Amino acid sequence: MSSPRTTDTFTSPIVESRRWIDGVSFPADRPLLNVSQAAPIDPPPTGLRQAMAQAAIEDDSAHLYGPVLGRPELRTGLAVQISEHYQAPVTAQQVAITSGCNQAFAATIAALCTDGDEVIIPAPWYFNHKMWLDMSGVSAVPLNVGADMLPDVDRAADLISPRTRAIALVSPNNPCGAEYPADLLRAFYDLAKSHGLALILDETYRDFDSRSGPPHQLLQLPDWDQTLIHLYSFSKAYRLTGHRVGAIATSAARLTEMEKFLDTVTICPNQLGQIGALWGIENLSDWVAGERDEILDRRAAIQEGFATIGEQGWKLLGCGAYFAYVEHPFQQDATEIARKLVDEASILMLPGSMFMPDDDPAGERQFRIAFANVDRAGISELFRRLAAFQP
Amino acid sequence: MSSPRTTDTFTSPIVESRRWIDGVSFPADRPLLNVSQAAPIDPPPTGLRQAMAQAAIEDDSAHLYGPVLGRPELRTGLAVQISEHYQAPVTAQQVAITSGCNQAFAATIAALCTDGDEVIIPAPWYFNHKMWLDMSGVSAVPLNVGADMLPDVDRAADLISPRTRAIALVSPNNPCGAEYPADLLRAFYDLAKSHGLALILDETYRDFDSRSGPPHQLLQLPDWDQTLIHLYSFSKAYRLTGHRVGAIATSAARLTEMEKFLDTVTICPNQLGQIGALWGIENLSDWVAGERDEILDRRAAIQEGFATIGEQGWKLLGCGAYFAYVEHPFQQDATEIARKLVDEASILMLPGSMFMPDDDPAGERQFRIAFANVDRAGISELFRRLAAFQP
Repeated sequence: MSSPRTTDTFTSPIVESRRWIDGVSFPADRPLLNVSQAAPIDPPPTGLRQAMAQAAIEDDSAHLYGPVLGRPELRTGLAVQISEHYQAPVTAQQVAITSGCNQAFAATIAALCTDGDEVIIPAPWYFNHKMWLDMSGVSAVPLNVGADMLPDVDRAADLISPRTRAIALVSPNNPCGAEYPADLLRAFYDLAKSHGLALILDETYRDFDSRSGPPHQLLQLPDWDQTLIHLYSFSKAYRLTGHRVGAIATSAARLTEMEKFLDTVTICPNQLGQIGALWGIENLSDWVAGERDEILDRRAAIQEGFATIGEQGWKLLGCGAYFAYVEHPFQQDATEIARKLVDEASILMLPGSMFMPDDDPAGERQFRIAFANVDRAGISELFRRLAAFQP
Repeated sequence: MSSPRTTDTFTSPIVESRRWIDGVSFPADRPLLNVSQAAPIDPPPTGLRQAMAQAAIEDDSAHLYGPVLGRPELRTGLAVQISEHYQAPVTAQQVAITSGCNQAFAATIAALCTDGDEVIIPAPWYFNHKMWLDMSGVSAVPLNVGADMLPDVDRAADLISPRTRAIALVSPNNPCGAEYPADLLRAFYDLAKSHGLALILDETYRDFDSRSGPPHQLLQLPDWDQTLIHLYSFSKAYRLTGHRVGAIATSAARLTEMEKFLDTVTICPNQLGQIGALWGIENLSDWVAGERDEILDRRAAIQEGFATIGEQGWKLLGCGAYFAYVEHPFQQDATEIARKLVDEASILMLPGSMFMPDDDPAGERQFRIAFANVDRAGISELFRRLAAFQP
């Protein structure tokens, strides 16, 4: 007898690591430095909050079911924004709104795969992608990244089997921080297209890319929507994590298939979150640009900091978006060190093993540091503590 | 090669029937009577809207990720409300909040089943339950209801196989309107327990039951949470459909399994919806009682109306909660009649075939009428049009 889907799936690292600090009281002179989760800890700007409050009072539609694929004005607004960002013509019919970007991935897999199918994902991976594949009875085929934290397209080609349905990439990457070069993405697109696979590209951290201009040209290609499934999140750009609003861009025909999944799981994305997201698109471009500058400055602080602890054996493997992916210098496993970092340094960060297959020991040498919530002073403190730490 | 999960799943009847009326202009003297969907069409009371608006402005937590299983104060508030409603001690640890009640069902199935498992559901069924089972690779085993619109426990026993994992009931029932007697629910509970199955009981329409007092005693049983999975929705009671807030009550251990699914699909329920739901629990008891009176009055109007068209062969099979389930008198199939009702009578209602297995012809003799949105005047008009209608 097989076990239920969830039994065969690991616990979310976020949920698990929260349990490590449950009930722990940290010294007053050494408060918790939480670099475990990629989430804004401040609320959105006042104007956006006011827009949502006003809609709650004045807009009846904010309280009623809406279309499964999202409010038409938000689909249009995002299509225009994507078209500008990628310098490519994307229409509202090619865009759908979801209850967060995780659900966008879940709907995508439901529309591509069935039990026993395979999806190739770079390892280290985004754990919720791996969890959803497990829960869907779909095999996650790990494509180990190289020393530059990038997946290799030829190695990916070798992993394709008759059951492969998609390749799923995240850029800028969670957890590795790598910004995938446009040429690499094009090579993966060509590989997927030539094998009749989908290329899933999660661009949740798009707005914090250090590069200017379109990060790739895939959306400019004719018939891009036959191969590419672009995923996006409003959570980071506008600090809307608590409202659960994400998006998918692909062919209208594929969205009609995903609509069955979205209808069955949540009926529609919540309306106030969508209203907030549209207000953000219309009003927060400059504000987001400032947020990006701040994140890029913190990224620089992380790079500088690692230079200072390099001689102790810490190594920065990748850095970008909200994340640094790092190698530690100790004999012990990262899983064990992570708990000691909580107890002895008041640092919560996730071991690389949480992003890797169980049988791959590389993760035990690594950590992910989600630095977006920590300002320069906090980052300095992080490095002071790491420099002083011995497991 | 097997097809993707969604390809093997039918389109939501709500989505499909919306397409029937897309672009149709109805005569000014015969506007559309839409009795297709079980959803409030009016927004929630002003106080609730103000509470959500205030939280959007003043409560930072309204915008940030919250716990996967819901805000602790809402879990506690609902546990207290359930304990009162069912006269049974239910704790906050036995309650989780979900992104709508459909997601509660989806999480439940993920935590009970894997590919090839079976779940017994009465037919006619709630279509989103059937769709989720299909998308999960789980066989929905139909248990045809009797003339009283109730499932028979002995027939259910005959359907149990080694792959059966659960029996899923909805009471008051969607689509049949039947209020399941407490004794019947107890018999199903005993059957499930004796076979080591889960009993899923969706009580979305709990607040519109015509009976007073606890509708069943299952939550009073010792160890109820080892067998029973109670599902609830805030959408109908407080008119929060656009906010997507539902709930599950079962064992804490089972909720921990479901947490993996909920985390992976949506991370957490949206916060403003939860804040609204808690405000409703704390402030809207009297208001909901008034809403119930109104629905029960509309139910009476439906019963009276069917008496007037009984001699034309229309027959009321079941009536309760938001629904009448009815038999039509015509030679043609309900699927065909449904389209003619749109064109010739400006009535949108769903054929029974949308709630039944493809190979069961009974659905073509039947319709579901979701009458909750239609006042007495509208119900009179409905019967005038039905009396005059010939396909």
